[in-house]
Amino acid sequence: MARSRNRQADAVTAALRAFLADQPEIDALRVAFSGGRDSTVLLHALARLDSGRGLTAMHVHHGLHEHAQAQAEHCRRFAARLGVDCEVRRIQVPGGSGEGLEAAARRLRYQSLAEGLSIGSCVLTAHHAGDQAETFLLAALKGSGPSGLAAMPPLRALGLGWLGRPLLGVGAAAIAAYAQAQDLKWVEDPSNRDTRFDRNYLRRRILPLLTQRFPVEPRLGAAAGLQAEAVEVLEGLLDPILDRLYGPVPWTLRMDAFLRQPPGRRSWLLRRFLERAGAPAPRRGPLLEFLRQLAEARPDSSPGLQWSGCSLRTYRGVLYLLRAGELAQPAPPGTLLDWPSGAPEMTLPDGRVLTTAELRAVGIHSGEGVRIGFRQGGEVLRTPGGRRSLKTLMQARGIPPWQRPRVPLVRLGDEWVAALWQHAERSPDRSACDHSPAAAVMPRRRGPVAAPADGRRESGSARAPSDSD
Amino acid sequence: MARSRNRQADAVTAALRAFLADQPEIDALRVAFSGGRDSTVLLHALARLDSGRGLTAMHVHHGLHEHAQAQAEHCRRFAARLGVDCEVRRIQVPGGSGEGLEAAARRLRYQSLAEGLSIGSCVLTAHHAGDQAETFLLAALKGSGPSGLAAMPPLRALGLGWLGRPLLGVGAAAIAAYAQAQDLKWVEDPSNRDTRFDRNYLRRRILPLLTQRFPVEPRLGAAAGLQAEAVEVLEGLLDPILDRLYGPVPWTLRMDAFLRQPPGRRSWLLRRFLERAGAPAPRRGPLLEFLRQLAEARPDSSPGLQWSGCSLRTYRGVLYLLRAGELAQPAPPGTLLDWPSGAPEMTLPDGRVLTTAELRAVGIHSGEGVRIGFRQGGEVLRTPGGRRSLKTLMQARGIPPWQRPRVPLVRLGDEWVAALWQHAERSPDRSACDHSPAAAVMPRRRGPVAAPADGRRESGSARAPSDSD
Repeated sequence: MARSRNRQADAVTAALRAFLADQPEIDALRVAFSGGRDSTVLLHALARLDSGRGLTAMHVHHGLHEHAQAQAEHCRRFAARLGVDCEVRRIQVPGGSGEGLEAAARRLRYQSLAEGLSIGSCVLTAHHAGDQAETFLLAALKGSGPSGLAAMPPLRALGLGWLGRPLLGVGAAAIAAYAQAQDLKWVEDPSNRDTRFDRNYLRRRILPLLTQRFPVEPRLGAAAGLQAEAVEVLEGLLDPILDRLYGPVPWTLRMDAFLRQPPGRRSWLLRRFLERAGAPAPRRGPLLEFLRQLAEARPDSSPGLQWSGCSLRTYRGVLYLLRAGELAQPAPPGTLLDWPSGAPEMTLPDGRVLTTAELRAVGIHSGEGVRIGFRQGGEVLRTPGGRRSLKTLMQARGIPPWQRPRVPLVRLGDEWVAALWQHAERSPDRSACDHSPAAAVMPRRRGPVAAPADGRRESGSARAPSDSD
Repeated sequence: MARSRNRQADAVTAALRAFLADQPEIDALRVAFSGGRDSTVLLHALARLDSGRGLTAMHVHHGLHEHAQAQAEHCRRFAARLGVDCEVRRIQVPGGSGEGLEAAARRLRYQSLAEGLSIGSCVLTAHHAGDQAETFLLAALKGSGPSGLAAMPPLRALGLGWLGRPLLGVGAAAIAAYAQAQDLKWVEDPSNRDTRFDRNYLRRRILPLLTQRFPVEPRLGAAAGLQAEAVEVLEGLLDPILDRLYGPVPWTLRMDAFLRQPPGRRSWLLRRFLERAGAPAPRRGPLLEFLRQLAEARPDSSPGLQWSGCSLRTYRGVLYLLRAGELAQPAPPGTLLDWPSGAPEMTLPDGRVLTTAELRAVGIHSGEGVRIGFRQGGEVLRTPGGRRSLKTLMQARGIPPWQRPRVPLVRLGDEWVAALWQHAERSPDRSACDHSPAAAVMPRRRGPVAAPADGRRESGSARAPSDSD
């Protein structure tokens, strides 16, 4: 019995050695140290391993319960006894943020762990095979697709560095055996027992019953691994197709080419397009309805989809992904802004900057007497060629309807005399959707170690983060 | 309460109507009728619907428990009261077949249901959303990939006809409500309570607890649906690549082209290759090890993989899929077979037939005095051009090593005088692997209704069967 426990405990050390051997580029390790059993084992085993890479600990102080302060003190003392520096960072989890307490805490925790991370540094968490099994089940119980079921990747980008989970293949029993063999003391987080959290409900009520019957950890871990592989293979096949579908400006698709793709493939292409753009995923039902409308669209219709501050719009055979900022009105209706006297530039309320060089390009030599307004409808522009309807000019230039209210119009006296067309496409905020989690806008990166040629290890070695972790 | 139950009960009828409307080509319905609650509801609802298509029932009599005979009688009487013919077919489930009682019973049951099915006919089972959720979880607990997690398709090929599951989207509660609203009587299969079966364990111990917390049926059903979609998209992307990798003879791949594929994609291509060939899937570990060896193979090595009566072999830059029959020795070592006097042909012990026309083609005018043998090593052939080592001749012709013992050699007097080379590739049994389930060798077919252009319904409308159903 004791021997079997020792063998299990050795699994922790072996997994850490294998992880470090696979990632020679990583030179600094930052253990996410809650003071609970799992991260205590991780920190202890890494300290004993003496890997020759910088080892520090970071405790994120949630302030969620009364013992939080004592827990932070315990962490500092425990790390000090191992000769490891432990930084404590305090976060404030906002109530009623709409995303749920659990999700908000997780988002802020990772944000905190990522702060100040340098290239070559890796945050390590103590997630093990039991956590992976839970994550898989939670994703399934949300009705997730392959990316969700892939659960947690062993390595992914975090800030400038990495987030590594070296114990994902180690069972919960082996972690417990290590803690016992080393006679470790840890702090029980009281929220772990709170079955109001879905994860704790699975852990305390469901998994013990499942484990009586099935080898849950290895099997669900294998299922998650196959999903990670499937995602990688799918993306590798979809991306070159997507590259050929891109439209004339960033984050657009050519509809004719898109609609020549087999119907069943379109939703996967579109979701991948959105993922690459850093946009959150829309819900499945509305997405499929939008695709149906696209396929059936008559020339005079223009289907659209809005979700989480993002929007898909169509115009003249092109599908546009728009963010909240690109749909906002630049100023209240009827606003007229005076060009600041003698200034070489002026800043619009939405942050865009206009310059006198731009005025000169449309034949206006200075900002004196210039006022800037925006389209409300019915405007007429006095141009060198005569008077023209603004609407006709915008249609002729192919400016999509949602960009039209954003074009700065130049007023001299009582007349509109020019439009600064180049600002139609410029948006004050091109990169973020409202609820897009920090993870989703992060660029996709490969792991620091190139995929080996044997095809075994590459899957999931570095995947785009999902909301499962 | 009663009103809510009626609404739920209506879900059964609505699902059946939708299924039939989607499949206008189906003109005969054969309900798989166990006499249990679910199939009783299915049969009753179809009979009431009066769809105008032929409706019959079939009861498969397992003989597994003492009440089986009474159950069959009940089924016949119940169907008769609805005015529906009910055929009873008896099967004998063999013990100790290696595949497990549950699996063997399922295989024989579907075999029985498929028998005599004509084109345009469809067997209907009463699988509902609860069964689908169980199938998904069972697949996950086996560590399955996307095909397994896709669970049961709503329609797939069966024999000459189809197997349809019109109630996959209907919750167990709606089935129960229908049974109650119609005051139906059914037979409880005692084996349903036997938690020695994994499925019953999930149904009785796990799912009630999960359902207290999560909307299990719709969520796991959605997850399974996304897997079916992913499988279809993946196959649609992998198949054209596979077509370009095929080698010179059936069920071969060109290794150079195969190895130019990204490493992570290779195992998926190879599994799809095997699936299209009707071969069972090898286990993941050995498959990946074989791929690793392939990628590293030196010119003088020839990696191979064997599983379930199938085998992958490499020879001169080509990867061959072989079945058990193609690796068998045609006769015991040293066998010499006399050509039957005066006969125009002779049959080898493995069933292959040699003809005097083939003898004449190698310059031997009749079977008189001819004996047929097989290579053991060291043979020398007397040819018009002189004496040649058989080994050298075989190498020169590029005959793979495993085909060499199968080439019939012609002996006249004390000398080998010819080889019937064309028999190298001929196998007594080209189509089956040992344990390949009936399902796996079935050709892939589309559903009777073409996929609609809106991309919503095609996924899983007809997929290759998996062992999950």
